Order: sequence, then C-alpha cells, then structure tokens
Amino acid sequence: LNSFIINNKDTFFSNATRSRIVYHVLQRTKYENGISKVGICKLINNGAYEAAFPPHEERILRNYQNISNKNNRHLLYERWARWGMWYKHQPLDLIRRYFGEKIGLYFAWLGWYTGMLIPAAIVGLCVFFYGLFTMNGSQVSQEICAAAEVFMCPLCDKNCSLQRLNDSCIYAKVTYLFDNGGTVFFAIFMAIWATVFLEFWKRRRSILTYAWDLIEWEEEEETLRPQFEAKYYTVERVNPITGKPEPHQPFSDKITRLLISVSGIFFMISLVITAVFAVVVYRLVVMEQFASFKWSFIKQHWQFATSAAGVCINFVIIMMLNVAYEKIAYLLTNLEYPRTESEWENSFALKMFLFQFVNLNSSIFYIAFFLGRFVGHPGNYNKLFNRWRLEECHPSGCLIDLCLQMGVIMFLKQIWNNFMELGYPLIQNWWSRHKIKRGIQDASLPQWENDWNLQPMNIHGLMDEYLEMVLQFGFTTIFVAAFPLAPLLALLNNIIEIRLDAYKFVTQWRRPLPARATDIGIWYGILEGIGILAVITNAFVIAITSDYIPRLVYEYKYGPCADRFTYICLKGYVNNSLSFFDLSELGIGKSGYCRYRDYRGPPWSSKPYEFTLQYWHILAARLAFIIVFEHLVFGIKSFIAFLIPDVPQDLYDRIRREKYLVQEMMYEAELEHL
Amino acid sequence: LNSFIINNKDTFFSNATRSRIVYHVLQRTKYENGISKVGICKLINNGAYEAAFPPHEERILRNYQNISNKNNRHLLYERWARWGMWYKHQPLDLIRRYFGEKIGLYFAWLGWYTGMLIPAAIVGLCVFFYGLFTMNGSQVSQEICAAAEVFMCPLCDKNCSLQRLNDSCIYAKVTYLFDNGGTVFFAIFMAIWATVFLEFWKRRRSILTYAWDLIEWEEEEETLRPQFEAKYYTVERVNPITGKPEPHQPFSDKITRLLISVSGIFFMISLVITAVFAVVVYRLVVMEQFASFKWSFIKQHWQFATSAAGVCINFVIIMMLNVAYEKIAYLLTNLEYPRTESEWENSFALKMFLFQFVNLNSSIFYIAFFLGRFVGHPGNYNKLFNRWRLEECHPSGCLIDLCLQMGVIMFLKQIWNNFMELGYPLIQNWWSRHKIKRGIQDASLPQWENDWNLQPMNIHGLMDEYLEMVLQFGFTTIFVAAFPLAPLLALLNNIIEIRLDAYKFVTQWRRPLPARATDIGIWYGILEGIGILAVITNAFVIAITSDYIPRLVYEYKYGPCADRFTYICLKGYVNNSLSFFDLSELGIGKSGYCRYRDYRGPPWSSKPYEFTLQYWHILAARLAFIIVFEHLVFGIKSFIAFLIPDVPQDLYDRIRREKYLVQEMMYEAELEHL
Repeated sequence: LNSFIINNKDTFFSNATRSRIVYHVLQRTKYENGISKVGICKLINNGAYEAAFPPHEERILRNYQNISNKNNRHLLYERWARWGMWYKHQPLDLIRRYFGEKIGLYFAWLGWYTGMLIPAAIVGLCVFFYGLFTMNGSQVSQEICAAAEVFMCPLCDKNCSLQRLNDSCIYAKVTYLFDNGGTVFFAIFMAIWATVFLEFWKRRRSILTYAWDLIEWEEEEETLRPQFEAKYYTVERVNPITGKPEPHQPFSDKITRLLISVSGIFFMISLVITAVFAVVVYRLVVMEQFASFKWSFIKQHWQFATSAAGVCINFVIIMMLNVAYEKIAYLLTNLEYPRTESEWENSFALKMFLFQFVNLNSSIFYIAFFLGRFVGHPGNYNKLFNRWRLEECHPSGCLIDLCLQMGVIMFLKQIWNNFMELGYPLIQNWWSRHKIKRGIQDASLPQWENDWNLQPMNIHGLMDEYLEMVLQFGFTTIFVAAFPLAPLLALLNNIIEIRLDAYKFVTQWRRPLPARATDIGIWYGILEGIGILAVITNAFVIAITSDYIPRLVYEYKYGPCADRFTYICLKGYVNNSLSFFDLSELGIGKSGYCRYRDYRGPPWSSKPYEFTLQYWHILAARLAFIIVFEHLVFGIKSFIAFLIPDVPQDLYDRIRREKYLVQEMMYEAELEHL
Repeated sequence: LNSFIINNKDTFFSNATRSRIVYHVLQRTKYENGISKVGICKLINNGAYEAAFPPHEERILRNYQNISNKNNRHLLYERWARWGMWYKHQPLDLIRRYFGEKIGLYFAWLGWYTGMLIPAAIVGLCVFFYGLFTMNGSQVSQEICAAAEVFMCPLCDKNCSLQRLNDSCIYAKVTYLFDNGGTVFFAIFMAIWATVFLEFWKRRRSILTYAWDLIEWEEEEETLRPQFEAKYYTVERVNPITGKPEPHQPFSDKITRLLISVSGIFFMISLVITAVFAVVVYRLVVMEQFASFKWSFIKQHWQFATSAAGVCINFVIIMMLNVAYEKIAYLLTNLEYPRTESEWENSFALKMFLFQFVNLNSSIFYIAFFLGRFVGHPGNYNKLFNRWRLEECHPSGCLIDLCLQMGVIMFLKQIWNNFMELGYPLIQNWWSRHKIKRGIQDASLPQWENDWNLQPMNIHGLMDEYLEMVLQFGFTTIFVAAFPLAPLLALLNNIIEIRLDAYKFVTQWRRPLPARATDIGIWYGILEGIGILAVITNAFVIAITSDYIPRLVYEYKYGPCADRFTYICLKGYVNNSLSFFDLSELGIGKSGYCRYRDYRGPPWSSKPYEFTLQYWHILAARLAFIIVFEHLVFGIKSFIAFLIPDVPQDLYDRIRREKYLVQEMMYEAELEHL
C-alpha cells in the first residue's frame, strides 16, 4: 500500500475525495495496529521512504488547445493562477476538487475578504480625497502657516533653537489629511464594515458547506502525534471516546510544560516591548544629533528624519524578531507535547498570532497613546533616566507620526511577505532543480519525480496564510482612524496575494494531502476579537490622539461661535491651544515667551503652569466622546449582527425541506408499522 | 378519535410521551386533510366540544400510605408541590414525565436561577451589613450630622425655609448604607455573577437535554393558525418546505400590520413615559403642599413623604398600565395575524417584555439619571413650564431616592404577582366549583369532569412565568449598585414561587398538553441583553448617581491627604462639596449665605455661579470611571464566558463516544462491503 501511494500515477488521485479515503485507511491501519505502529508515517520517520505525497496531475503543457483534454491542474492554472485572471471570481469548486475542502475554504475566505475590501478601500479613498480637497480651506493649518511671529519652545535641550510655528506648516497640512471630520465617520464605517464582513462570511460559509456536502460532517477522532506516543508510552489510560488504552500525559507534567511555554511567550513579548523602548530611547538620543546635523536639509527636517529612521529601524527589528520567534514558537510547541496534530497546530497558531500581533502593533500603540503625553512642561520636563527629555509631538498633533508608522510598516510588510511567499519557493525550486541537474520541463519523468523537486507544503499548513491575512485585517481596522488608506493597501496586496497563492499551490508546491474543514477554525474568533478591539482603539485614537475633540470644545465653548454666530468657528484655535512659557526662567539669557502644546496657566496667572479649566473641560469631553462612540458603535454592531441571519433564507428553507421529507418518510413508515 | 381524547381515562395519558404521540397524530390528521380542515381544534372552534385536554392522573388522596400505589401526580404533590419541600431539589425527571420537556425545562431553569441567587443574596447581605456596621464611622455622615451652623438653600420657592444641614443627618446615614466602597465591589460581583449564571445554565441545559434525549430532536414544521388560514385563504403559495400550497400573507399586508402594531407599542411606551412625567410633576406640585402641611411630622419629613407617596402612585400606575397593556398586546398580536402558534407566542412575548420592562424601569431610570441634574442653581433655577422648580436631591445624594423606588416597586410587585398567581386561580376554582355545586372531593366523578372544573392553563403558556422571572432578573442586576438587597428579595420570592407554581400546576390547572423544547427560547437572549445592560447602568449609577467619585477626587486631590498623609482623608468633604449662594440676591430681605449641592464659584469669585475647575475635574473622573469600569467588567465577563465550556467535559466525551461508535460501525460495514 505504501509504495502504491508514491508510485501510482495521477489516475488514482484525480480527485480529492478518493485520495482522502486512502488517507483515512492509512490512518486507521496505523491506529489499529496499536503500539506496534506500522504504516507510512513510521516508514518515513525511519527513513525507509523520503516522502509520501499525492502526485499532481500531469504537468502543464502550454500547447493544449482542446479544452476537453485539459486536466484539473491545467484548468486551475489557466483559470485561476494567472495574473490575467485577477479581476475574476475564483473557480472554488475546482479548487475544492483538486486540493480538498480545507484549502478551498481558505481561498473562498480570502476571495470574500478581498471583495469586501473594495467598498472599504473606496470609502477610505473618498475620505482621503475629502481631506486633500478641503486641506487649503482648513482654518487650523491656515493659522499655523500664517503664524510667523509665534515661537515654539525648543524641542530639545541643547541644539534646538526656537522654531517659528509656521515652520511646521507642511506637517499641519498633512495632519489635516488624516485628522478631519471624515475620520470619525470612517472609523464608524469600518467598525460596521468589519461586522458586516464577518456576518456575511457566515452566510457565505453556510452556502459553501451545504454545496460541498459538509453540513453533517464531523471531525473524526484524531490519532496521537508520534512524538506524544513515544514520550508517554509508559503511562497509559483508557481514552473515554475510543475506549482503548493510549499513552497519557500526567497533569502535573502538562502544567509544567504549559507554564514553561507561557513564560517563553511572555519573555519574547517583553523582548518586543524592550525593543520598542529601545527605539524610543534611540529617537531621543538621535534627535539631538539630527538637530545639530551639518547637512541643512536634515537639520531643517530633523523631526521627520528622526521619525523615518525610527520607523525603519523598528521595521527591521520587527522582521528579525519574527524570524527568531518562529523558531522559538516551534520549539515551545514541541516542548508542550500536544496530543494530536490539530492541537499542535492550534497551539502554534495561537503563539504565532499573539506574538506577531504584539510585535507589529506595539510600536503603533506607543505612538498612538503614549508619545508626547508625559513630557511635563517647559522648565519642568520629565526626563527618562533623569537624562533624556521625552519626545514631544508636532504643534499639529501626534497623528502624523502614527500615520507614518502605520503606512511604512504595512507597506514594507506586504512587500516582504509577497517576496517570501513567492520568491523564496521559486528560488528553492530553482536550486533543487539545479542541484539534481534536471529541468522541470522533463516530460519523460514520471509525475511523482517531477513533484519530488517541488517544495513540500509548509509544515504549518494554511496557518501562515491565515496569520498574514488576520494581521492585515488588524491593520485595516484597528488604527484605521489614523490611516484611512489602509484598506486600499490591503486590497491591492490581496489581489496580488490570491494569484500568488494560486500560482504557488498549483506549480510550486507538492500537492498537499486533502483535508476537510467546515470553517476557518480559531481565526474566526480572532477576527471577531480584532473587530471589537478596533472599536475601542479607534475611539481612543479619535478622542485622545487626534485634535478632533479640542477643536470641537473650542468651537462650541471657547471660540467666537460660543457667543454669536459666525462661519469661522475655529478662528483663534491655534493660539488658544498653545500655552505660554517665560523664556527667562531657563536662565540662558533669553527673554520673552515661547509657546508649547498644552492647556496650562500662563506664567503671569495665579497658578502658573497648572492645568487650566479648559484642560479639564477638554479631558471630560474626550472621555465623554469615548463613551458615546463605543456605546453607539457597539450598539450598531450588535444590531446588525442580530439583523443578518447566519444562513440565507432559501438555503435554510432547503435544509428544512430535506429534514421535513425525512420526517415525512419516518412517519409513513411508523404508520405502516402500526 | 376526538371523543377518545376527552373520554379516555388516565391510563392512556399516564405518560407524557404517549399523549404527545396522539397530539402529533391529531395535528397531522388536521394537516393532511388540507383545506377542508377537520379535527379537534375545528370542533372546539365550532362549539361542538367545549374543551379538549389530557386529564390529570387520579386525584390526590391524602390517605395513601403505600408508596407503590402512588401515581405520578400524587408523587409530584408530595415531593414537590408542598411548602415543606422548599429546601429540596425538584424532582425534574418526574416533572418532565408528567408535564413534558417544555415545562420541565422551565422548572429546571427556575430552580437553577434560585440556587444561583443564594451566593448573590449572601454577598449582598454582607455588603449591606458592612454598610450598617461602618455607618457610624463614616466621615461624611458625621460631618453632616455635626453641621448645625450650615444652612441649606430652600428646596422650594414659597413655603420652604432654610434648613440646617444636620436636619438630613438620618438620610446621610441611610445613604451611606448603600453608597460605600462595597457597592462598587458588589456591582462588579453581580456582573460576573450574571455571566456565570448564564454560562453554567448552558452546561446544565446540555446535561438535561442529553438526559431527556433531546440532543437530536428538531422542531417539526408547525401548522398554520386557524385565524391565519381563515383570513388569507384566497391567496395561496407553495410552502418551500412542505411543498404544498397554503394560504399566504401578502408582503404589503404584513408590513402594514407590523407598522400598526409597532406604533401601538410606541404609543403605549410613550404613555408610560407620560405617566412617569406626570408623577414628576405631581411631586413638584405636592412638594410645596407637604412643606406647608399642618401635621408637623409630615412637615418635617416632607421630602420623604413626597417620595414615598410618589413611589406608591407610581406603583399603582404601573400595575394599571400593565393590566391595560396585556389586553392591547393581545389585540395587537392578533392584528398581526402571525402564521403559526409559536410566531404568535414570540410576538406576544416580545411585546409584553418590551412594555413591562419600560413600564417597571422608566421611573427608576428617571431617578437614577435625571433627578436633580438639571435644576440650575439658586437665583437661576430651571423651571418646568416656567412654573415649577425641578426637584433637587438630598444633601447626601440622590441614591436614597433610587433605593426607595427600587425597594418599594420590587417588594410590592412580588407580593402582587404571588397573589395573582395563586390567589386568583384558587378563587376562580372555588367559584366554578361553587357554581356547579359539586365538591372537588367527589371521587365518584370521572377524572375529566373533575379536571373540567379546573382553570385551563393560561393561553400564554409559560410566557407569564418566564416574563416575571426575567423582569425580576432585571431588578436584581440592573440597579444592583443602588440596592444590594435585591438578590435577597428575589431569592425569598423564588423559593415561594417554585412551590406556588408547583402547587398550581399539580392541583389548580388542567394538565397542559405536553410539548418538547430544548431551551428556554428567546428568554436566553433577553437575559444576556439584561446582563450587558446591567454593566452599563451600574457603571453610570456608581459614576453619576452616587457620590463615590467626588469623594475619591476630594480624597486624592483636594482633601488633606493630597498634600500629606493622614487617616481622615475625607475631612472637610461636605463643606467642599457645597457651593455658596448669597441670600441677599433673592431680594426677600434675608442676608448671609446659604449652601447648595454643586461645584460652582462662590458669589465673591471672579465668575460667580460658573462651574469651578473642581467640577470639570470630577466630571472627567466620573467619565474615566465609566470607561475603566465597563472595559474591566466586560473584559472579565467575556473571559469567563470563554473559559467555561458550554458542555461539561464528561458529557462531551460521552457524546463523542456515541458518535465514534457509530462511525466505527459504518467503517466496518464499508470494509465488509469492499
């Protein structure tokens, strides 16, 4: 039987179902022989065989003309895996027939997600263009650009001079692009979009599982992992489900291993946080250097240079930690000795997700919620290690830093991923062909030898693919208020991703063992969690990071509109939002006042540098906004989730009808019986 | 067959399953005859028969001694429906055997809820006693009781005089009972309790449905309601499930009727809100009257008298509206012409719940979140209709009003319900026996004639029972921060309720037609909704209604502890929390200052009667508390819900084992086949 698997040509494996049956038989053979395991896995582990895989269908020949002669693989290549097909629906039934339901479901989900990104990208683009077109009319940036006589307090202690406020004119304009009324709307829109996406995916899934005959299918009892059996063969207990004795992991052993694993994860996560912190310190140190740089372009734009360099370093650290962590997660998961293969996969997936999520997002969280918040005020700055002054934000807010960080990480990560996904296997395949001095075009070889030259499908199965998409979903929703172009970037990436994956599956990887699945597993729960997190972070970004609330408060309470009606409600906002500092207090021989971003009493007031009433007023408004936004959006989300049934009405009717007919037959049988 | 149902003695109906079969056969007979319906329902509607019901088992004879002779009904009476059994578990299997799964599940749920109330009641009692024992040490009430020289501004315009602050000493003490640190803890505890209750109920339910063999059971296609068929017999369409033609309600007709029904509900709800508003106005009007009352006791305690009278009037209005609404809901539901009986029930239940929930809770919401909030300040009061000054809270806060309102409504409602549930059928049964001049003890009569004298089970089925319990669940969770004794009241009520219901089902009602159900239906979703609402309301009650946050802010920022360490951090809090008003501004010949509850600038400040910095500071703290509380509690809730699996492990194993064995057999059959 074993050699049969490897040698038999594609006729036997021409459809996934039959190869699945063989797979089951194999599994069961292995199982029923009890301790003295035999079977293909054993033989592979022994080294008797090097690999076992279902061969691909015949190689793709470009000169096929007659459609009736084309095999499934060829059809998949022509109709699915080519760039020219990018705007077309995927041939899901064919994918399922060739690769099995699990992979079919992945591509269905990916296609669905990509399709749903289109409206999000369009609306995001509209919001961006709205910002672009109204940019010049923005009162705030006009005031900043006109303020040639307003001097900002120096941003660093030694080499920084007083800057004119209108020096940051360009930042003010860019900030307006991402910090205008449209942002609030877009944040709400994306929260609802995420819900609609997940709810309609449930419907899509139910249609697919019905069409693919998976409605009543249930996972079989899995066999144990060989590593688990080898480790724990001394302790046995009766499996409550199969009723047969099997190796058993003692509880204390399990807990110990779990604890080690969890502390490993925490160690790595603290490493990430340390790295973020290191980048922060780097920025503080380098800030002074850039500000005293000889090259005047950098000297002038030292703030931007610092940010950009910081982001790039950050990205390199992120990618390095990712690579290192993957190995550690693999070791830790093996250390846990999971019972079955799917437990192994879930444990590994959760580890990878947790870490990568923290790794990718922690620097963004830092910039969104911590940067520029604890700086103190001129004359009494808070210092890190009593040495470095903490970084401040631009006069027009921290949002531009956030935006830069998001954009760069997302863009670079997608390029990197696409390279790793396609470039890496291409190079490896080229290398292995080169090594064995045999061209892939060699039609005289049997199919399995041609396939032998291909890469085996990654050990993590579909996990890597899902993980990448889920992290991307996080980027498109969690901080979407700061970067409305995220859905567009994601959409462009996914259009490429689908065809890349398709190409990879059809031509670069050995044909994977087909498997069944009725849903996308733990990823659905993670997506829902991200959807909830997104509402919270967006509320906080709008309320705390952006200047939307201070502007609103000014407009309705402190500005010219508070007393009488006028069209320029924000007139004087910039002046109002900057506090005064008496330069003579520094004792460096300068006199006069400089300004800084905060709501503190001026030096001549009764309580100099204490928070003013307006500060507390704005704080209350910010918090009230968070409460209102969250309750509103969560309310709408739940209502939409409640409104959209998980199964479309006609499918529901069809399933009911089938059940009804069965009941009907049973009744008739019963009546006859009587 | 029809007469057989009525005449055949209890032998046939000795267990619920068999009577269910007969019921099904009846239903199907009716169905299959198509348009020319015949069957028992038709005959009853015609008036050919007066009623059809499964008869009870033999009457209860108190002199049965030999247990083997006792029938199910007698056993139920002895082991379940007597007061003496109040501390015992219910014989659920027996209830199920006698009344069917649907009623069995109701009692299982009620018993589970009652059991879960025990820890809540104990913790609530502890919180109450904690308040009681630390009451005398409370700094706030000590300061209020000692403040003989502080005069409060008059609470009404004409007849109220300046009151000394220490006049409200007793209110301050009572307020402390319900407004101390324990309250915050208890609110969090109850939110978690609600989650644990619902999560463990899912486990309990899964055990019951497994034991009662309902795991694979599915609801059959229901037949149409006769009213529906009679109304729409002209328009036919093919039912997609049964594939047979049936009357059909046109979409436009459906929408019209739904709109009428919805506006009916909105009308009634606006009636409720009007009633609440009327009580508010009544309180404003009567306040002045009570304050000038001749009887000095009332004159002294006019505030309490106003509140108490207001609450009682409120309760009477609530009960009257409930009675009126029930009829209206019945009419509206019939007007909608629901297709099937269960659609009718769901529509009616939702209507009843929505209305009763609003009716019971709107006055409490008013007191919690609106009372005393929009009064303005002395010299510039906001007036209703430019005539009546809005009501203010006591110097120690509005929480005492909320507490009074909750306590009275809950207590009176429970007494009323228990009377209606038992007293009413008792009287009716007595009356019907009296009318036909035949004692229930008449053993010579056949069982069905004895049962004929009993009340038919309410048309709403179990809906009334569930509704009452769900509303009570709302009381025990939604405002539990204001009234920690609510779970205790609920527990006491439910201990009585179980035995009352049992007694009613066993002796006072005709035996209901047994029905199957796998869960408690829409009520579960409503309970979950209440659990979520409870977290939000409790956060707002603690943050906004109680004085917990102002005390905290004073303690850490404005009080003596802000600068140096001392044990009496709240020293001076009362004085700090009261603003000054210059009496000479009233122009009634008085001079000096009176005090009022607010944080406004004193008359001698630069901005008299404007909100102070402390006001905005406290507001920010209140809002921050809401955010922290909600995120924390919802986080814990979700985590607990995630941790507790819906099916206990051993039951899960057992179900898997059964499926495994089936798969095993199928494989063997398949192998043999090969």
